[in-house]
Amino acid sequence: MDRFEPTDRTTVKRLPKRAEYERATVYEILDEGFVCHVGFVVDGQPFVIPTSYGRAGDRLYIHGSAASRMLRALEGGVEVCVTVTLVDGLVLARSAFHHSINYRSVVVFGKAEPVDDRDLKLEALRAFTEHLVPGRWDDVREPNEDELRATTVLALPLTEASAKIRTGPPIDDEEDYQLPVWAGEIPLRVVAAAPVADPRLESETGAPSYALKFADSTER
Amino acid sequence: MDRFEPTDRTTVKRLPKRAEYERATVYEILDEGFVCHVGFVVDGQPFVIPTSYGRAGDRLYIHGSAASRMLRALEGGVEVCVTVTLVDGLVLARSAFHHSINYRSVVVFGKAEPVDDRDLKLEALRAFTEHLVPGRWDDVREPNEDELRATTVLALPLTEASAKIRTGPPIDDEEDYQLPVWAGEIPLRVVAAAPVADPRLESETGAPSYALKFADSTER
Repeated sequence: MDRFEPTDRTTVKRLPKRAEYERATVYEILDEGFVCHVGFVVDGQPFVIPTSYGRAGDRLYIHGSAASRMLRALEGGVEVCVTVTLVDGLVLARSAFHHSINYRSVVVFGKAEPVDDRDLKLEALRAFTEHLVPGRWDDVREPNEDELRATTVLALPLTEASAKIRTGPPIDDEEDYQLPVWAGEIPLRVVAAAPVADPRLESETGAPSYALKFADSTER
Repeated sequence: MDRFEPTDRTTVKRLPKRAEYERATVYEILDEGFVCHVGFVVDGQPFVIPTSYGRAGDRLYIHGSAASRMLRALEGGVEVCVTVTLVDGLVLARSAFHHSINYRSVVVFGKAEPVDDRDLKLEALRAFTEHLVPGRWDDVREPNEDELRATTVLALPLTEASAKIRTGPPIDDEEDYQLPVWAGEIPLRVVAAAPVADPRLESETGAPSYALKFADSTER
């Protein structure tokens, strides 16, 4: 399925022309972000917790530790809303009212299930690590059995999701275009600085190419 | 009150040494972010919607349009959880298990109330605009009465909030420090590029100093 079927929950109702349901678009946004915001309900109270995540195929893995409050309260699967937002620019209009932000966001709904299976936990830890820095997994000590047991992971199937995207210049009221006010976009991007070695690192250990390359080129 | 009194909801239970309850710390994080994630509940279902915001004193203003679904479902105030997260770096440990992210986040709980008062709506629009680019408000066409009526704003008192912060190198298991694996941090920051003028801008209008300065120096 190349496209998510819009549901009542994922249908973008405000400014529907900003909506995107293509699976490739949704995955590109998920893969570019570093932190997701997990929303869940305990006793009627909403919680929104930022946490790291990774994607493996059509499955989103969420670091379960961040949701320990939820896991304590609820056995088994729990309805969540997971949102990832990338801020691309500040949109300066001629009127205060039409100021905006250029962004790309994804909202995923579904039931997050605790992962108990050892091999799936390993896949999740691999997804977390590779999500931070592609290529990292091959260099590090892999999880041992104690760590796999201690890892709390939630899996969320990517079946109900949508993206929302705003790009481009401000949209002012027609009569405001004549005003002598500068208008446009201030693009924002996330850049990586040179890697900072752990003070406890043996001095002969150089930073790996994927970390240096990250700093050089990955302006994401 | 210089410090938020921790409540059951805002007490950081996992890794409590990362918690901060100082009001100044919380406000610094709120003022640096551009997008907040608003969590609310409709019929037991959690929603997490990214939206712009602004702070005026001890009050957080949220663009209500993003929460139109909530406003339709619920009259009056509604319990929300508003989270702002800044990603500061990727933390590469010697073991996959200890990879992490350096970040600063704020979680605010409370009842968001629709703002009906005209002057408070004006304050909110000013807060939104100045939050994007300080100094912008004085240059733009101020909201007219129609726009103030059309603006949907929620106000959330900043009375119950906490911050969570991770900084520094990875924390590896003691026996892993001898491994010949590079470890450290890849710092990330948000940078502004040169302003892009709206194609419909009159050619003689130059970008204002606060927009250029933003691109030069604001690496936040």
